[in-house]
Amino acid sequence: MENHRPLKGKFFVLEGSDGSGKSTVATGLYRELTARGHRVLKTREPGGSPIGEEIRELLLNPQNSAMAPRTEALLYAASRAQHVAQVILPALEEGKVVLCERYIFSSIVYQGVGRNLGIEEIFRLNQWATGALVPHLTLYLDTDNLKREERLKKRFLGEEPDRLELDGDFLERVHRGYGKVLEVFPHAMKIIDATQSPEAVLKQCVAALEKEL
Amino acid sequence: MENHRPLKGKFFVLEGSDGSGKSTVATGLYRELTARGHRVLKTREPGGSPIGEEIRELLLNPQNSAMAPRTEALLYAASRAQHVAQVILPALEEGKVVLCERYIFSSIVYQGVGRNLGIEEIFRLNQWATGALVPHLTLYLDTDNLKREERLKKRFLGEEPDRLELDGDFLERVHRGYGKVLEVFPHAMKIIDATQSPEAVLKQCVAALEKEL
Repeated sequence: MENHRPLKGKFFVLEGSDGSGKSTVATGLYRELTARGHRVLKTREPGGSPIGEEIRELLLNPQNSAMAPRTEALLYAASRAQHVAQVILPALEEGKVVLCERYIFSSIVYQGVGRNLGIEEIFRLNQWATGALVPHLTLYLDTDNLKREERLKKRFLGEEPDRLELDGDFLERVHRGYGKVLEVFPHAMKIIDATQSPEAVLKQCVAALEKEL
Repeated sequence: MENHRPLKGKFFVLEGSDGSGKSTVATGLYRELTARGHRVLKTREPGGSPIGEEIRELLLNPQNSAMAPRTEALLYAASRAQHVAQVILPALEEGKVVLCERYIFSSIVYQGVGRNLGIEEIFRLNQWATGALVPHLTLYLDTDNLKREERLKKRFLGEEPDRLELDGDFLERVHRGYGKVLEVFPHAMKIIDATQSPEAVLKQCVAALEKEL
Protein backbone atom coordinates (compact mmCIF):
# COMPACT_ATOMS: atom_id res chain seq x y z
CA MET A 1 0.00 0.00 0.00
CA GLU A 2 1.74 3.13 -1.27
CA ASN A 3 0.49 5.39 1.55
CA HIS A 4 2.30 3.34 4.15
CA ARG A 5 5.49 4.84 2.78
CA PRO A 6 6.42 7.78 4.98
CA LEU A 7 4.99 10.89 3.33
CA LYS A 8 6.37 14.19 4.51
CA GLY A 9 3.46 16.28 3.23
CA LYS A 10 -0.23 16.50 4.08
CA PHE A 11 -3.09 15.66 1.75
CA PHE A 12 -6.39 17.55 2.14
CA VAL A 13 -9.52 17.11 0.03
CA LEU A 14 -12.58 19.32 -0.49
CA GLU A 15 -15.86 17.60 -1.31
CA GLY A 16 -19.37 18.95 -1.95
CA SER A 17 -22.06 19.30 -4.62
CA ASP A 18 -21.61 21.56 -7.64
CA GLY A 19 -22.06 25.12 -6.42
CA SER A 20 -21.12 24.36 -2.80
CA GLY A 21 -18.14 26.72 -2.97
CA LYS A 22 -15.22 24.30 -3.19
CA SER A 23 -13.15 26.52 -5.54
CA THR A 24 -13.64 29.60 -3.38
CA VAL A 25 -12.61 27.69 -0.25
CA ALA A 26 -9.60 26.16 -2.06
CA THR A 27 -8.40 29.61 -3.12
CA GLY A 28 -8.86 30.95 0.41
CA LEU A 29 -7.07 27.99 1.99
CA TYR A 30 -4.20 28.33 -0.46
CA ARG A 31 -3.77 31.97 0.52
CA GLU A 32 -4.04 31.31 4.27
CA LEU A 33 -1.71 28.29 4.35
CA THR A 34 0.87 29.96 2.09
CA ALA A 35 0.83 33.00 4.40
CA ARG A 36 1.62 30.63 7.30
CA GLY A 37 4.76 29.46 5.46
CA HIS A 38 3.54 26.16 4.01
CA ARG A 39 4.43 25.13 0.48
CA VAL A 40 0.98 24.39 -0.98
CA LEU A 41 -0.11 22.64 -4.18
CA LYS A 42 -3.71 23.43 -5.20
CA THR A 43 -5.20 20.97 -7.66
CA ARG A 44 -8.57 19.55 -8.74
CA GLU A 45 -10.31 16.54 -10.20
CA PRO A 46 -11.14 15.44 -12.81
CA GLY A 47 -7.92 16.49 -14.49
CA GLY A 48 -4.93 17.76 -12.55
CA SER A 49 -2.31 16.27 -14.91
CA PRO A 50 -1.85 16.64 -18.70
CA ILE A 51 -3.15 13.09 -19.33
CA GLY A 52 -5.87 13.66 -16.73
CA GLU A 53 -6.97 16.83 -18.54
CA GLU A 54 -7.33 14.87 -21.79
CA ILE A 55 -9.49 12.34 -19.94
CA ARG A 56 -11.48 15.20 -18.41
CA GLU A 57 -12.29 16.59 -21.87
CA LEU A 58 -13.56 13.19 -22.92
CA LEU A 59 -15.73 12.94 -19.79
CA LEU A 60 -17.31 16.38 -19.99
CA ASN A 61 -17.79 16.58 -23.79
CA PRO A 62 -21.58 16.85 -24.35
CA GLN A 63 -21.13 14.88 -27.62
CA ASN A 64 -20.23 11.76 -25.62
CA SER A 65 -23.80 11.19 -24.42
CA ALA A 66 -23.57 7.50 -25.38
CA MET A 67 -21.02 6.92 -22.61
CA ALA A 68 -21.85 3.82 -20.54
CA PRO A 69 -21.90 4.25 -16.73
CA ARG A 70 -18.99 1.85 -16.19
CA THR A 71 -16.94 3.62 -18.87
CA GLU A 72 -17.51 6.88 -17.00
CA ALA A 73 -16.48 5.34 -13.65
CA LEU A 74 -13.34 3.81 -15.16
CA LEU A 75 -12.33 7.07 -16.85
CA TYR A 76 -12.65 8.98 -13.58
CA ALA A 77 -10.55 6.30 -11.87
CA ALA A 78 -7.95 6.48 -14.68
CA SER A 79 -7.72 10.25 -14.39
CA ARG A 80 -7.33 9.90 -10.61
CA ALA A 81 -4.63 7.22 -10.93
CA GLN A 82 -2.60 9.57 -13.12
CA HIS A 83 -3.23 12.54 -10.84
CA VAL A 84 -1.97 10.60 -7.81
CA ALA A 85 1.08 9.10 -9.52
CA GLN A 86 2.23 12.20 -11.38
CA VAL A 87 1.13 15.14 -9.22
CA ILE A 88 -0.13 14.36 -5.71
CA LEU A 89 2.41 11.74 -4.53
CA PRO A 90 5.49 13.64 -5.78
CA ALA A 91 4.25 16.79 -3.98
CA LEU A 92 3.62 14.86 -0.75
CA GLU A 93 7.08 13.30 -0.99
CA GLU A 94 8.53 16.83 -1.24
CA GLY A 95 6.71 17.75 1.96
CA LYS A 96 4.08 19.98 0.37
CA VAL A 97 0.52 20.51 1.55
CA VAL A 98 -1.77 19.25 -1.22
CA LEU A 99 -5.26 20.82 -1.49
CA CYS A 100 -7.42 18.84 -3.91
CA GLU A 101 -10.96 19.68 -5.05
CA ARG A 102 -12.81 16.34 -5.24
CA TYR A 103 -11.33 12.86 -4.79
CA ILE A 104 -12.64 9.31 -4.29
CA PHE A 105 -15.87 10.32 -2.52
CA SER A 106 -16.92 12.35 -5.57
CA SER A 107 -16.76 9.16 -7.62
CA ILE A 108 -18.67 7.23 -4.98
CA VAL A 109 -21.38 9.90 -5.01
CA TYR A 110 -21.57 10.53 -8.76
CA GLN A 111 -20.98 7.04 -10.15
CA GLY A 112 -21.69 4.80 -7.14
CA VAL A 113 -24.95 6.50 -6.07
CA GLY A 114 -25.77 8.83 -9.03
CA ARG A 115 -25.27 6.12 -11.68
CA ASN A 116 -26.32 3.26 -9.37
CA LEU A 117 -23.02 1.39 -9.77
CA GLY A 118 -22.70 0.69 -6.05
CA ILE A 119 -20.84 2.45 -3.24
CA GLU A 120 -18.64 -0.56 -2.41
CA GLU A 121 -17.69 -1.25 -6.05
CA ILE A 122 -16.63 2.33 -6.77
CA PHE A 123 -14.75 2.52 -3.49
CA ARG A 124 -12.79 -0.64 -4.31
CA LEU A 125 -12.05 0.48 -7.87
CA ASN A 126 -10.65 3.77 -6.65
CA GLN A 127 -8.66 2.27 -3.79
CA TRP A 128 -6.88 0.24 -6.48
CA ALA A 129 -6.50 3.24 -8.82
CA THR A 130 -4.84 5.33 -6.12
CA GLY A 131 -2.81 2.59 -4.45
CA ALA A 132 -4.99 3.29 -1.39
CA LEU A 133 -3.68 6.83 -0.91
CA VAL A 134 -6.06 8.20 1.75
CA PRO A 135 -6.27 11.96 2.55
CA HIS A 136 -5.25 13.15 6.00
CA LEU A 137 -8.55 15.06 6.11
CA THR A 138 -11.56 15.53 3.83
CA LEU A 139 -13.81 18.56 4.32
CA TYR A 140 -17.40 18.23 3.12
CA LEU A 141 -19.01 21.54 2.21
CA ASP A 142 -22.64 20.92 3.12
CA THR A 143 -25.23 23.15 1.44
CA ASP A 144 -28.97 23.25 1.64
CA ASN A 145 -30.60 22.70 -1.75
CA LEU A 146 -31.92 26.23 -2.14
CA LYS A 147 -28.59 27.97 -1.81
CA ARG A 148 -26.94 25.44 -4.07
CA GLU A 149 -29.51 25.99 -6.82
CA GLU A 150 -29.07 29.74 -6.61
CA ARG A 151 -25.32 29.43 -7.03
CA LEU A 152 -25.69 26.99 -9.93
CA LYS A 153 -28.19 29.27 -11.66
CA LYS A 154 -25.81 32.17 -11.35
CA ARG A 155 -22.96 30.13 -12.74
CA PHE A 156 -24.88 28.97 -15.81
CA LEU A 157 -25.86 32.48 -16.91
CA GLY A 158 -24.22 32.71 -20.33
CA GLU A 159 -22.39 29.39 -19.94
CA GLU A 160 -23.14 26.04 -21.58
CA PRO A 161 -23.69 23.25 -19.02
CA ASP A 162 -21.41 20.21 -19.49
CA ARG A 163 -22.56 16.62 -20.05
CA LEU A 164 -23.14 15.87 -16.35
CA GLU A 165 -24.79 19.18 -15.55
CA LEU A 166 -27.40 18.67 -18.29
CA ASP A 167 -29.33 16.18 -16.13
CA GLY A 168 -31.14 17.98 -13.29
CA ASP A 169 -32.48 14.81 -11.68
CA PHE A 170 -28.93 13.44 -11.66
CA LEU A 171 -27.75 16.46 -9.66
CA GLU A 172 -30.46 15.83 -7.08
CA ARG A 173 -29.35 12.21 -6.70
CA VAL A 174 -25.79 13.43 -6.28
CA HIS A 175 -26.79 15.77 -3.46
CA ARG A 176 -28.57 12.92 -1.67
CA GLY A 177 -25.54 10.74 -2.51
CA TYR A 178 -23.28 12.65 -0.14
CA GLY A 179 -25.77 11.84 2.60
CA LYS A 180 -25.56 8.13 1.77
CA VAL A 181 -21.77 8.24 1.74
CA LEU A 182 -21.84 9.79 5.21
CA GLU A 183 -24.07 6.91 6.39
CA VAL A 184 -21.65 4.28 5.04
CA PHE A 185 -18.44 6.16 5.97
CA PRO A 186 -19.46 8.29 9.00
CA HIS A 187 -15.86 9.15 9.97
CA ALA A 188 -14.57 9.87 6.50
CA MET A 189 -15.42 13.56 6.10
CA LYS A 190 -15.57 16.56 8.40
CA ILE A 191 -18.84 18.39 7.71
CA ILE A 192 -18.62 22.16 7.22
CA ASP A 193 -21.83 24.19 7.11
CA ALA A 194 -21.38 25.90 3.75
CA THR A 195 -24.53 28.02 4.10
CA GLN A 196 -22.61 30.41 6.40
CA SER A 197 -20.88 33.52 5.05
CA PRO A 198 -17.80 32.76 2.88
CA GLU A 199 -15.58 34.25 5.62
CA ALA A 200 -17.07 31.98 8.30
CA VAL A 201 -16.78 28.91 6.05
CA LEU A 202 -13.12 29.64 5.33
CA LYS A 203 -12.34 30.27 8.99
CA GLN A 204 -13.84 26.92 9.97
CA CYS A 205 -11.91 25.13 7.21
CA VAL A 206 -8.60 26.75 8.23
CA ALA A 207 -9.19 25.73 11.85
CA ALA A 208 -9.88 22.09 10.83
CA LEU A 209 -6.72 21.89 8.72
CA GLU A 210 -4.51 23.56 11.31
CA LYS A 211 -5.13 20.68 13.71
CA GLU A 212 -3.47 18.37 11.15
CA LEU A 213 -0.48 20.58 10.38
CA MET B 1 -24.36 -10.68 -14.33
CA GLU B 2 -25.24 -9.36 -17.77
CA ASN B 3 -24.15 -12.44 -19.69
CA HIS B 4 -26.74 -14.58 -17.98
CA ARG B 5 -29.32 -12.76 -20.08
CA PRO B 6 -30.11 -14.97 -23.04
CA LEU B 7 -27.90 -13.80 -25.91
CA LYS B 8 -28.86 -14.97 -29.36
CA GLY B 9 -25.46 -14.36 -30.94
CA LYS B 10 -21.99 -15.83 -30.47
CA PHE B 11 -18.95 -13.97 -29.20
CA PHE B 12 -15.51 -15.04 -30.46
CA VAL B 13 -12.17 -13.47 -29.53
CA LEU B 14 -8.73 -13.62 -31.17
CA GLU B 15 -5.71 -13.25 -28.91
CA GLY B 16 -1.97 -13.31 -29.63
CA SER B 17 1.18 -11.15 -29.55
CA ASP B 18 1.66 -8.25 -31.95
CA GLY B 19 2.50 -9.74 -35.32
CA SER B 20 0.81 -13.09 -34.63
CA GLY B 21 -1.62 -12.57 -37.52
CA LYS B 22 -4.85 -11.70 -35.67
CA SER B 23 -6.08 -9.20 -38.29
CA THR B 24 -5.44 -11.61 -41.18
CA VAL B 25 -7.32 -14.37 -39.38
CA ALA B 26 -10.18 -12.01 -38.47
CA THR B 27 -10.56 -10.97 -42.13
CA GLY B 28 -10.50 -14.60 -43.24
CA LEU B 29 -13.03 -15.65 -40.60
CA TYR B 30 -15.32 -12.78 -41.52
CA ARG B 31 -15.28 -13.92 -45.16
CA GLU B 32 -15.80 -17.60 -44.32
CA LEU B 33 -18.61 -17.10 -41.79
CA THR B 34 -20.41 -14.54 -43.96
CA ALA B 35 -20.27 -17.00 -46.88
CA ARG B 36 -21.95 -19.58 -44.61
CA GLY B 37 -24.87 -17.18 -44.08
CA HIS B 38 -23.99 -15.73 -40.65
CA ARG B 39 -24.40 -12.03 -39.89
CA VAL B 40 -20.92 -11.14 -38.63
CA LEU B 41 -19.59 -8.09 -36.80
CA LYS B 42 -15.79 -7.74 -36.95
CA THR B 43 -14.32 -5.41 -34.34
CA ARG B 44 -11.12 -4.84 -32.38
CA GLU B 45 -9.67 -3.50 -29.15
CA PRO B 46 -8.59 -1.02 -28.00
CA GLY B 47 -11.24 1.10 -29.69
CA GLY B 48 -14.26 -0.37 -31.42
CA SER B 49 -16.62 2.51 -30.50
CA PRO B 50 -16.35 6.29 -31.05
CA ILE B 51 -15.58 6.91 -27.36
CA GLY B 52 -13.30 3.87 -27.35
CA GLU B 53 -11.37 5.25 -30.34
CA GLU B 54 -10.78 8.51 -28.44
CA ILE B 55 -9.45 6.49 -25.50
CA ARG B 56 -7.31 4.45 -27.91
CA GLU B 57 -5.67 7.64 -29.25
CA LEU B 58 -4.83 8.67 -25.70
CA LEU B 59 -3.33 5.24 -24.97
CA LEU B 60 -1.18 4.97 -28.08
CA ASN B 61 0.00 8.60 -28.31
CA PRO B 62 3.82 8.51 -27.90
CA GLN B 63 3.62 11.92 -26.18
CA ASN B 64 1.85 10.30 -23.20
CA SER B 65 5.02 8.54 -21.98
CA ALA B 66 4.34 9.75 -18.41
CA MET B 67 1.27 7.50 -18.21
CA ALA B 68 1.18 5.52 -14.94
CA PRO B 69 0.63 1.73 -15.22
CA ARG B 70 -2.70 1.85 -13.36
CA THR B 71 -3.92 4.72 -15.57
CA GLU B 72 -3.13 2.58 -18.60
CA ALA B 73 -4.98 -0.44 -17.16
CA LEU B 74 -8.03 1.69 -16.26
CA LEU B 75 -8.15 3.32 -19.71
CA TYR B 76 -8.10 -0.09 -21.42
CA ALA B 77 -10.89 -1.22 -19.09
CA ALA B 78 -12.89 1.97 -19.85
CA SER B 79 -12.51 1.47 -23.59
CA ARG B 80 -13.62 -2.15 -23.19
CA ALA B 81 -16.65 -1.22 -21.03
CA GLN B 82 -17.82 1.13 -23.79
CA HIS B 83 -17.12 -1.41 -26.53
CA VAL B 84 -19.19 -4.06 -24.73
CA ALA B 85 -22.10 -1.75 -23.87
CA GLN B 86 -22.36 0.08 -27.19
CA VAL B 87 -21.17 -2.44 -29.81
CA ILE B 88 -20.71 -6.06 -28.70
CA LEU B 89 -23.82 -6.61 -26.54
CA PRO B 90 -26.27 -4.98 -29.00
CA ALA B 91 -24.84 -7.15 -31.82
CA LEU B 92 -25.14 -10.32 -29.71
CA GLU B 93 -28.72 -9.40 -28.80
CA GLU B 94 -29.48 -9.12 -32.53
CA GLY B 95 -28.14 -12.65 -33.02
CA LYS B 96 -24.92 -11.68 -34.79
CA VAL B 97 -21.59 -13.47 -34.63
CA VAL B 98 -19.08 -11.06 -33.07
CA LEU B 99 -15.40 -11.48 -33.99
CA CYS B 100 -13.20 -9.35 -31.75
CA GLU B 101 -9.43 -8.87 -31.96
CA ARG B 102 -8.19 -8.79 -28.35
CA TYR B 103 -10.29 -8.77 -25.17
CA ILE B 104 -9.71 -9.25 -21.43
CA PHE B 105 -6.73 -11.60 -21.79
CA SER B 106 -4.81 -8.91 -23.69
CA SER B 107 -5.15 -6.65 -20.66
CA ILE B 108 -4.10 -9.46 -18.33
CA VAL B 109 -1.02 -10.06 -20.47
CA TYR B 110 -0.05 -6.42 -21.18
CA GLN B 111 -0.97 -4.76 -17.90
CA GLY B 112 -1.20 -7.69 -15.48
CA VAL B 113 2.05 -9.39 -16.53
CA GLY B 114 3.80 -6.80 -18.74
CA ARG B 115 3.31 -3.92 -16.27
CA ASN B 116 3.41 -6.19 -13.21
CA LEU B 117 -0.03 -5.12 -11.97
CA GLY B 118 -1.11 -8.69 -11.20
CA ILE B 119 -3.12 -11.25 -13.19
CA GLU B 120 -5.92 -11.49 -10.60
CA GLU B 121 -6.31 -7.69 -10.21
CA ILE B 122 -6.59 -7.06 -13.94
CA PHE B 123 -8.97 -9.99 -14.37
CA ARG B 124 -11.26 -8.63 -11.63
CA LEU B 125 -11.14 -5.06 -12.97
CA ASN B 126 -12.17 -6.24 -16.43
CA GLN B 127 -14.87 -8.60 -15.22
CA TRP B 128 -16.45 -5.54 -13.64
CA ALA B 129 -15.89 -3.36 -16.72
CA THR B 130 -17.62 -5.88 -18.99
CA GLY B 131 -20.36 -6.98 -16.59
CA ALA B 132 -18.66 -10.41 -16.79
CA LEU B 133 -19.41 -10.89 -20.49
CA VAL B 134 -17.35 -13.99 -21.34
CA PRO B 135 -16.66 -15.05 -24.96
CA HIS B 136 -18.06 -18.35 -26.21
CA LEU B 137 -14.55 -19.15 -27.50
CA THR B 138 -11.14 -17.43 -27.49
CA LEU B 139 -8.53 -18.49 -30.04
CA TYR B 140 -4.89 -17.89 -29.10
CA LEU B 141 -2.60 -17.50 -32.12
CA ASP B 142 0.65 -18.95 -30.82
CA THR B 143 3.84 -17.86 -32.59
CA ASP B 144 7.47 -18.69 -32.03
CA ASN B 145 9.53 -15.60 -31.26
CA LEU B 146 11.51 -15.67 -34.50
CA LYS B 147 8.53 -15.49 -36.82
CA ARG B 148 6.89 -12.80 -34.70
CA GLU B 149 9.96 -10.57 -34.86
CA GLU B 150 10.14 -10.92 -38.63
CA ARG B 151 6.51 -9.85 -38.98
CA LEU B 152 6.97 -6.92 -36.62
CA LYS B 153 10.09 -5.77 -38.48
CA LYS B 154 8.21 -5.86 -41.75
CA ARG B 155 5.33 -3.91 -40.30
CA PHE B 156 7.54 -1.13 -38.92
CA LEU B 157 9.29 -0.40 -42.24
CA GLY B 158 8.34 3.21 -42.84
CA GLU B 159 5.97 3.33 -39.87
CA GLU B 160 6.45 4.99 -36.49
CA PRO B 161 6.04 2.54 -33.60
CA ASP B 162 3.38 3.55 -31.05
CA ARG B 163 3.96 4.15 -27.33
CA LEU B 164 3.73 0.47 -26.35
CA GLU B 165 5.78 -0.81 -29.27
CA LEU B 166 8.70 1.48 -28.39
CA ASP B 167 9.74 -0.81 -25.53
CA GLY B 168 11.33 -4.03 -26.87
CA ASP B 169 11.77 -5.65 -23.46
CA PHE B 170 8.09 -4.97 -22.74
CA LEU B 171 7.11 -6.93 -25.87
CA GLU B 172 9.18 -9.90 -24.69
CA ARG B 173 7.42 -9.86 -21.31
CA VAL B 174 4.09 -9.75 -23.14
CA HIS B 175 4.97 -12.82 -25.18
CA ARG B 176 5.88 -14.74 -22.03
CA GLY B 177 2.73 -13.29 -20.45
CA TYR B 178 0.43 -15.34 -22.68
CA GLY B 179 2.23 -18.43 -21.35
CA LYS B 180 1.53 -17.33 -17.76
CA VAL B 181 -2.13 -16.66 -18.55
CA LEU B 182 -2.41 -20.19 -19.95
CA GLU B 183 -0.95 -21.53 -16.69
CA VAL B 184 -3.51 -19.62 -14.58
CA PHE B 185 -6.47 -20.08 -16.97
CA PRO B 186 -5.66 -23.40 -18.77
CA HIS B 187 -9.15 -23.78 -20.25
CA ALA B 188 -9.67 -20.19 -21.31
CA MET B 189 -8.14 -20.19 -24.79
CA LYS B 190 -7.90 -22.68 -27.63
CA ILE B 191 -4.29 -22.67 -28.86
CA ILE B 192 -3.78 -22.38 -32.61
CA ASP B 193 -0.29 -22.95 -34.04
CA ALA B 194 0.17 -19.67 -35.90
CA THR B 195 3.52 -20.67 -37.42
CA GLN B 196 1.65 -22.75 -40.02
CA SER B 197 0.74 -21.33 -43.45
CA PRO B 198 -1.98 -18.64 -43.32
CA GLU B 199 -4.35 -21.05 -45.10
CA ALA B 200 -3.76 -23.81 -42.52
CA VAL B 201 -4.20 -21.33 -39.61
CA LEU B 202 -7.49 -20.06 -41.01
CA LYS B 203 -8.77 -23.59 -41.67
CA GLN B 204 -8.08 -24.59 -38.07
CA CYS B 205 -9.79 -21.43 -36.74
CA VAL B 206 -12.88 -21.97 -38.90
CA ALA B 207 -13.12 -25.56 -37.67
CA ALA B 208 -12.89 -24.44 -34.01
CA LEU B 209 -15.62 -21.82 -34.44
CA GLU B 210 -17.94 -24.11 -36.39
CA LYS B 211 -18.26 -26.40 -33.38
CA GLU B 212 -19.81 -23.46 -31.49
CA LEU B 213 -22.21 -22.32 -34.22
